[in-house]
Amino acid sequence: MVKAALLGATGYAGQQLTALLHGHPHIDIYTIGSNSSAGGRFSDEYGKFVDHLDDCDTMTSTDELMKGLQHCDVLLLALPHGASKEIVTSILKDSTLNHLKIVDLGSDFRFNSQHPEAVYGLCEINREAIKQARLVANPGCYPTAAVLALTPLLKMGEQFEHLLKVEDLAQNTLIIDAKSGISGAGRSPVTKHLFAEIYGNAYPYKIGDHPHTNEIEQALEVSWPIQFTPNIIPVNRGIIENIYVKLSLKESIQSEAIEHLFQELYSDYYRQSPFVRIRRDRLPMLTDVTYSNHCDIGFRYDVRTGLLVIVSTIDNLMKGAAGQAVQNINLMFGFDESAGLTHLPAHL
Amino acid sequence: MVKAALLGATGYAGQQLTALLHGHPHIDIYTIGSNSSAGGRFSDEYGKFVDHLDDCDTMTSTDELMKGLQHCDVLLLALPHGASKEIVTSILKDSTLNHLKIVDLGSDFRFNSQHPEAVYGLCEINREAIKQARLVANPGCYPTAAVLALTPLLKMGEQFEHLLKVEDLAQNTLIIDAKSGISGAGRSPVTKHLFAEIYGNAYPYKIGDHPHTNEIEQALEVSWPIQFTPNIIPVNRGIIENIYVKLSLKESIQSEAIEHLFQELYSDYYRQSPFVRIRRDRLPMLTDVTYSNHCDIGFRYDVRTGLLVIVSTIDNLMKGAAGQAVQNINLMFGFDESAGLTHLPAHL
Amino acid sequence: MVKAALLGATGYAGQQLTALLHGHPHIDIYTIGSNSSAGGRFSDEYGKFVDHLDDCDTMTSTDELMKGLQHCDVLLLALPHGASKEIVTSILKDSTLNHLKIVDLGSDFRFNSQHPEAVYGLCEINREAIKQARLVANPGCYPTAAVLALTPLLKMGEQFEHLLKVEDLAQNTLIIDAKSGISGAGRSPVTKHLFAEIYGNAYPYKIGDHPHTNEIEQALEVSWPIQFTPNIIPVNRGIIENIYVKLSLKESIQSEAIEHLFQELYSDYYRQSPFVRIRRDRLPMLTDVTYSNHCDIGFRYDVRTGLLVIVSTIDNLMKGAAGQAVQNINLMFGFDESAGLTHLPAHL
Amino acid sequence: MVKAALLGATGYAGQQLTALLHGHPHIDIYTIGSNSSAGGRFSDEYGKFVDHLDDCDTMTSTDELMKGLQHCDVLLLALPHGASKEIVTSILKDSTLNHLKIVDLGSDFRFNSQHPEAVYGLCEINREAIKQARLVANPGCYPTAAVLALTPLLKMGEQFEHLLKVEDLAQNTLIIDAKSGISGAGRSPVTKHLFAEIYGNAYPYKIGDHPHTNEIEQALEVSWPIQFTPNIIPVNRGIIENIYVKLSLKESIQSEAIEHLFQELYSDYYRQSPFVRIRRDRLPMLTDVTYSNHCDIGFRYDVRTGLLVIVSTIDNLMKGAAGQAVQNINLMFGFDESAGLTHLPAHL
Repeated sequence: MVKAALLGATGYAGQQLTALLHGHPHIDIYTIGSNSSAGGRFSDEYGKFVDHLDDCDTMTSTDELMKGLQHCDVLLLALPHGASKEIVTSILKDSTLNHLKIVDLGSDFRFNSQHPEAVYGLCEINREAIKQARLVANPGCYPTAAVLALTPLLKMGEQFEHLLKVEDLAQNTLIIDAKSGISGAGRSPVTKHLFAEIYGNAYPYKIGDHPHTNEIEQALEVSWPIQFTPNIIPVNRGIIENIYVKLSLKESIQSEAIEHLFQELYSDYYRQSPFVRIRRDRLPMLTDVTYSNHCDIGFRYDVRTGLLVIVSTIDNLMKGAAGQAVQNINLMFGFDESAGLTHLPAHL
Repeated sequence: MVKAALLGATGYAGQQLTALLHGHPHIDIYTIGSNSSAGGRFSDEYGKFVDHLDDCDTMTSTDELMKGLQHCDVLLLALPHGASKEIVTSILKDSTLNHLKIVDLGSDFRFNSQHPEAVYGLCEINREAIKQARLVANPGCYPTAAVLALTPLLKMGEQFEHLLKVEDLAQNTLIIDAKSGISGAGRSPVTKHLFAEIYGNAYPYKIGDHPHTNEIEQALEVSWPIQFTPNIIPVNRGIIENIYVKLSLKESIQSEAIEHLFQELYSDYYRQSPFVRIRRDRLPMLTDVTYSNHCDIGFRYDVRTGLLVIVSTIDNLMKGAAGQAVQNINLMFGFDESAGLTHLPAHL
Repeated sequence: MVKAALLGATGYAGQQLTALLHGHPHIDIYTIGSNSSAGGRFSDEYGKFVDHLDDCDTMTSTDELMKGLQHCDVLLLALPHGASKEIVTSILKDSTLNHLKIVDLGSDFRFNSQHPEAVYGLCEINREAIKQARLVANPGCYPTAAVLALTPLLKMGEQFEHLLKVEDLAQNTLIIDAKSGISGAGRSPVTKHLFAEIYGNAYPYKIGDHPHTNEIEQALEVSWPIQFTPNIIPVNRGIIENIYVKLSLKESIQSEAIEHLFQELYSDYYRQSPFVRIRRDRLPMLTDVTYSNHCDIGFRYDVRTGLLVIVSTIDNLMKGAAGQAVQNINLMFGFDESAGLTHLPAHL
Repeated sequence: MVKAALLGATGYAGQQLTALLHGHPHIDIYTIGSNSSAGGRFSDEYGKFVDHLDDCDTMTSTDELMKGLQHCDVLLLALPHGASKEIVTSILKDSTLNHLKIVDLGSDFRFNSQHPEAVYGLCEINREAIKQARLVANPGCYPTAAVLALTPLLKMGEQFEHLLKVEDLAQNTLIIDAKSGISGAGRSPVTKHLFAEIYGNAYPYKIGDHPHTNEIEQALEVSWPIQFTPNIIPVNRGIIENIYVKLSLKESIQSEAIEHLFQELYSDYYRQSPFVRIRRDRLPMLTDVTYSNHCDIGFRYDVRTGLLVIVSTIDNLMKGAAGQAVQNINLMFGFDESAGLTHLPAHL
């Protein structure tokens, strides 16, 4: 059994991660760390876990947790922005911890320039690099849905070239209109995230300056800007994105034929990826994926406008955070990629 | 007092209309018609109206209602698609009903070719024509939010021409990504609209073939196709639209300056319109307008992509249906445009 | 026009009160006070009120507001527990403010022992005293629904005495199981009231020690303890209470006859009360009253157990707080009791 | 592997059952039957299961399914009320099906008089009988929560007798005020269960005549009537019940001591039951159990009224339906009682 230490367990992603590690067939939770709740029990914070997690229930301070890392195989960090950098840097310098692998769920190591050892942990795109990695930067939630939806198109230019020229994509801004449940905003007690403020509400925010914009552009390796518009909708979990792509078709083709072609090519691209489902029956809905690690992708081509709408949906706490972190560990330690992640979507 | 007959009172829009007419200072409800519930009381259908609407509470059949039209000043129709056409046609031929004005909340008369007398009832855009009209086609909910958000830009070309060429808009498809509460889908008992199916869910539908697409294009008088994507979100009422417009700026301008310019020009365009609010403080949210007849519009310019995002939000049952119908009656009968519509948004 | 000052406008009740005062035909808002937001505009706090409340939009500090009270006719206080006491006491001592009437929405003056001048402002029960009062203590939300549901039974003993002996009620504890939306808990940013914590949740709290227990017992003038169990349910507004009363019937009577008798007697008791509706068609639902000042009451007698279940429902921000405060002002100043409160329930 | 046939897969309980069987380590789904959707794929009905359930995805008619029962070990029925009776009766007469065990999720066999072979499948109460049973009647959702909460008190009289006389319970009606999510009402398309009707709503229904009243009384083996009040609240899944019990204490005892005593005795009673959690940290909430097979029980004693409030909560589709059916199969076939049911509650 792989021994895991988890730092930052009391946020929503940390909590989901704790639940997943607890149910994983090849992982034992060695210790749970939380500065804000050190000495308390994890089930004091999250009463629904009473009677579970008994062996690892008492949370340690960061300092205590660091001392115990010699006994661990992997460290997972689910900390606020900026808090991982120093911890990881000191670990990487400590020769007694050479055996320790690290998965950071925050954004401190997602950008190429941030650390030479860091691998961007989008499993379906970077699988081989992740298998060799010591330090994995787990992707952001919005980028996971967006990059899975766009990579085949951008990377399989030759397959599409009888249809369109991929370089034309740069001429017509890619637009991502994304809707997210509120758990993505974290568990800090702020007035704007109270139940009575979000109930019945919906709104866009941080248009043009959300940090995930750059993460998407880097992960897609494009040199031109993408329009990214996140929106809050009143659900607890889940992200669904409508992505608008202008197709410059060389010949007139029916909508169904275009959609079929994309379904075929994407299915082929993801044929080894157990969590990506290319939908042929209908466009995906948010509840098709919530409480599971799936990413569902569908296509609709509007022949009037020449725009292809790619619809991509994930559970932000699963494939968008904790589920993907576990998937990364599975790759790093040579487990089956689905180990501990065989949850079906909850049907309601 | 104007005497109003209402046909189709048991749907969500019909019910909102009944409530608004009941509270209107210059309108009496003469009769409420409903074929499905004829003979029943309106408060049997909607128990929350017990002790109100006493004088007009018993619903009549369509036939009975038609016989009483001589005594009415205005007929409101909130019927399923296709059901208004025959009724209105026969009324227009009946010389004893020459005095009767008509507002149709359905889509049977929204298109130019459908009837020469019909005026498209988007009050802020067609105010003078509506004042003279006998037959008004009340706009659809999605088009109301979209057309109010785009008309100033498309109609005030010369004001923007130092900035951009409006004809360029045709080169770069306008994209409308709209989110709507479920009441817009009506009150028919279908499995897909059960509480347990919509709860926690969100999804796009009818991309490229929603009939409101054509209604928007006609109302904007554009000759090129618009991309319109409606989405269901799990709220009872309200629509919020993100509209993407490519600006071909002649010179480099800061985001704030662009946004300020649009705020100024739009405020000027709507200076006589009590229900349109151009937001300067922040982008609008859905709950800024729910339970009121407002349309809130805001702007965000993304200097990286050159796209302007216009955010427009209404309550689909108020400004998107019943509220606008009352506003049309106010114009047709010379009342204050806000009469019976002075509701503040419910704060939560 | 009556000039009103409002202190504590930025909570949910204060905000609802501001909206109601703004729409009242006989009241002008003279000033809005808020220590936390002094100098800011009310519409900065609540953006949906932009373009409304223009004359009174800038909030003053408590000190500033106190200085202006000479110019006001009534002061409304919507402050946290304990904050009204000192303010009101100093006003009552100030001979220059003898003209000023006061309505306190908090709990500082609800108990008999707290101040000799204070009148408990449950309009339907204390109407005549309120008309003469200078200082009115606006009731709590849970007590309003409970006391309206139980007073006729407890006060009309002789009308029921062929059926039951009211003194028997003391032998069988009255049980109130109440469900409330979350706005009743206020607008403080606490983790347990975040959207993601309340969504999909429901739970009882403060069983046996909620301060409204004593308020209910005092208002009903009973000498024996009542069981009161408040529960949170995931809605923004509204309270619905199931109240269990053991009937010791002298003879065997059918359920329908008992229910009919209660409907008759309660209707008679509330015949002068425009906001109390005794439901005969079916039991009340929460959405029968939300966004209105109504209290709906219904009855179901279970012949198997001999228990009468009284169902009582209000909107906690309207009849349970701001609506009732306005109703109190109407009584204190001799206006029509419904002035500014003619809102129909929102149908959805 | 046990081969299971499932009849009635397209309702909410049937669907949850399909998902659980699919993930069970010792069960294979042999066939899924649905008359309404015969010939269709299960994932046509529930698109989120695309790419899963491939082997058993096509649904058969009842007739087809019955022909294949020779190859099955267990038949699960999730049918509307009354539909199981004939099917089960004919199976029990068919000597070629002697090997076949049956679990009926409906109410056709829950009452003692209905069939001599039927065992009431409340696992924690009837464990030994279930192990020997051929035909198990899976309990209703409300009764599961209520009976688990009351059985220890009613069955362990001697343990409580220094405190109270259990026979006194008959003198003071037990009251169960239960709140349920809407999935318990099934998947039929009726207007009153549309999203827009339930959203923001809450209401009691069928007070005194809900069929679960008798089921609770029978399962508790009491000879006196119980007051049962079900309420709908706007969540998709979950039941939480407040149960009021009058304690006639022989001596004065502090609340904490009473609560502690109940915690101890109940914990002891359920020490072999992996899914019942006696809460000592705080009272249970609905989201403590949703998406899991747990039943959480807590206690609060109100010393003022002498009433003990027992709070009991389950997921109606898990422990209240499909989860309990799987638990019954585990007992009937000698598997670990938790096999296929190790889901933690979803934390949000």
